[in-house]
Amino acid sequence: MVDRVYNFSPGPATLPYEVLQKAGKDVVNFQETGIGLIEISHRSKEFMAVVDETEKNLRELLNISDNYRVLFLQGGASSQFFMIPMNFLGGGQKATYLNTGTWAKKAIKEAGLFGDIDVPFSGEKSNFNRVPKDLEFDVAENSQYLYFVSNNTIYGTQFSSFPKKEKMLICDMSSDILSRPIDIEKFGLIFAGAQKNLGPAGVTIVIIREDLLDRAPESTPAMLSYRTHADKGSMFNTPPCFAIYVVGEVLKWLKNMGGVEVIEKRNIEKANLLYDAIDIDDYYRGHAERGSRSLMNISFNLPSAELEGKFINRAAALGLSGLKGHRSIGGCRASIYNAFPLEGVEKLVAFMAKFKDENPV
Amino acid sequence: MVDRVYNFSPGPATLPYEVLQKAGKDVVNFQETGIGLIEISHRSKEFMAVVDETEKNLRELLNISDNYRVLFLQGGASSQFFMIPMNFLGGGQKATYLNTGTWAKKAIKEAGLFGDIDVPFSGEKSNFNRVPKDLEFDVAENSQYLYFVSNNTIYGTQFSSFPKKEKMLICDMSSDILSRPIDIEKFGLIFAGAQKNLGPAGVTIVIIREDLLDRAPESTPAMLSYRTHADKGSMFNTPPCFAIYVVGEVLKWLKNMGGVEVIEKRNIEKANLLYDAIDIDDYYRGHAERGSRSLMNISFNLPSAELEGKFINRAAALGLSGLKGHRSIGGCRASIYNAFPLEGVEKLVAFMAKFKDENPV
Repeated sequence: MVDRVYNFSPGPATLPYEVLQKAGKDVVNFQETGIGLIEISHRSKEFMAVVDETEKNLRELLNISDNYRVLFLQGGASSQFFMIPMNFLGGGQKATYLNTGTWAKKAIKEAGLFGDIDVPFSGEKSNFNRVPKDLEFDVAENSQYLYFVSNNTIYGTQFSSFPKKEKMLICDMSSDILSRPIDIEKFGLIFAGAQKNLGPAGVTIVIIREDLLDRAPESTPAMLSYRTHADKGSMFNTPPCFAIYVVGEVLKWLKNMGGVEVIEKRNIEKANLLYDAIDIDDYYRGHAERGSRSLMNISFNLPSAELEGKFINRAAALGLSGLKGHRSIGGCRASIYNAFPLEGVEKLVAFMAKFKDENPV
Repeated sequence: MVDRVYNFSPGPATLPYEVLQKAGKDVVNFQETGIGLIEISHRSKEFMAVVDETEKNLRELLNISDNYRVLFLQGGASSQFFMIPMNFLGGGQKATYLNTGTWAKKAIKEAGLFGDIDVPFSGEKSNFNRVPKDLEFDVAENSQYLYFVSNNTIYGTQFSSFPKKEKMLICDMSSDILSRPIDIEKFGLIFAGAQKNLGPAGVTIVIIREDLLDRAPESTPAMLSYRTHADKGSMFNTPPCFAIYVVGEVLKWLKNMGGVEVIEKRNIEKANLLYDAIDIDDYYRGHAERGSRSLMNISFNLPSAELEGKFINRAAALGLSGLKGHRSIGGCRASIYNAFPLEGVEKLVAFMAKFKDENPV
């Protein structure tokens, strides 16, 4: 039996250990029904109760008002990249996208298949080391929505506050949903792949304002219209039951922790520990500009690629796993989502100090 | 602790108990890595090995030749209903569909959004109690493919042999894949949602002939083109890791059982037991015509709806669960996929005899 390691992977990512233990039991025998969680009918009263409770807890945690629907979809956040413009830009209407990194770029590409896409900000020239301030960009009056990615996993940047424009916001919150409170009323649609802050890969949460359900052109396949899934309580077809169940358990864990206000404080504490270790001198260098620093993903470099390789390997040997940065910027990255324990960050910070001492430039 | 019950649900459905036990352990600590299966990076060497082995075993079990690709997709079989015509009928080309029930009808509806759809057979008038014989329908020369559903879960009908037409076949094998050998060369594409014969809900297997990968129009969103997923080894975006893993374990179990030839014999044995119990007199009446009877789903009626309700409840109390038929035809249904144990069928057959004795008409 290998001890549990600290897993800094960007997603799929660390989940609460108690959630894993409960899921492991329920997979074999779900709620003592004599049927495993992954065998039980999605229309059984036991599983329907899971879906209902999961939605209820998400609504409570994020303070989602009644004029929004919560959907559990498949296809990952990547499917939302095309479903959003397919549903909302029928007839080639205009929308505004902020290009803050890889995931934004992919969304912009898909949106271009359906509408006229404005991109008034791009961080590409500075290797996406920051997100824009409100004053830096305009949103055209006839734009249907303003799309942005709240947290950019690869570059370690995050909107510390959301754009304050007179425009409906649409947001990819895959990597920071539930890490802090949000003002839901500003958003038309929020989506998040589960595998960072919510649960395992295989389900995507969509929170959509009710009046937006009927925007899809008539020629839209049933599975690609939000209306279809809203009308059938996310059971137009068999949903990804196991992934929804785990999300439900993560939400219960988060409620027990005290909710998003409490987890936000904890996230700030964890991130500050790491940024302090980076800022102490020039040995470690953070990728993101200070005003754009992410609380979820901390991307940083060492004095050389050679040292970075050594750092990642030594850390792994000590049970600090998954610190390799994304190939597009290299270096190191520590992903510390909601469920990542403080002790893991403390251990990493101690290791960083030791490594620096032992490997001077 | 409730004992394990016999779960006759149509899907999600019974899985091998040893697979559940292994999955339950790996969820908490995957292969003794100190990281849970549902937390580990999809690009870790451990998980990549799972995907590779799963594909290898599927190829071996179904004797899939090298000019076919195996994809692990999200969105259920329902997403294939539109992806197939979207990829293959660009410019409104013709295709032929056999209407053998609910799932075929849904596929026909979606195909109509993209092409000119011929439906030379419909079982609707006889409440889908049979599948067509080859002589009963023609396929237009300019039709791009012949689409059919090999097994119809609701009505309990199945093609005992596949259509012998000079036309590329496309088949929804969601409910009988791996239940018998197939001659892959006749097919352009085979797809199957996992939650019947393959694993849990949340992944769909697509087996596609390589030359068909490039048929999608340029305007197709990346996630909806088969080429995208084939080029990226089903990792264009984060795949549904847990569901793929369980499919892999089910395939290993099937290999250990002796493969599809062995399981086919076992499936015939199980289904015959049940059909014999139905055919003994007029108390139980099978829905499907004899030549179209499914080895996977046995739909049957009792002399009255009242007796059916009583039958289902009594059976459930004895640990024979999920026998309620689909609302569209009522009555009872026993789904006995690959992993459903023979002892469960024997127990049901014994109960059927006893119930008949105790509840004469």
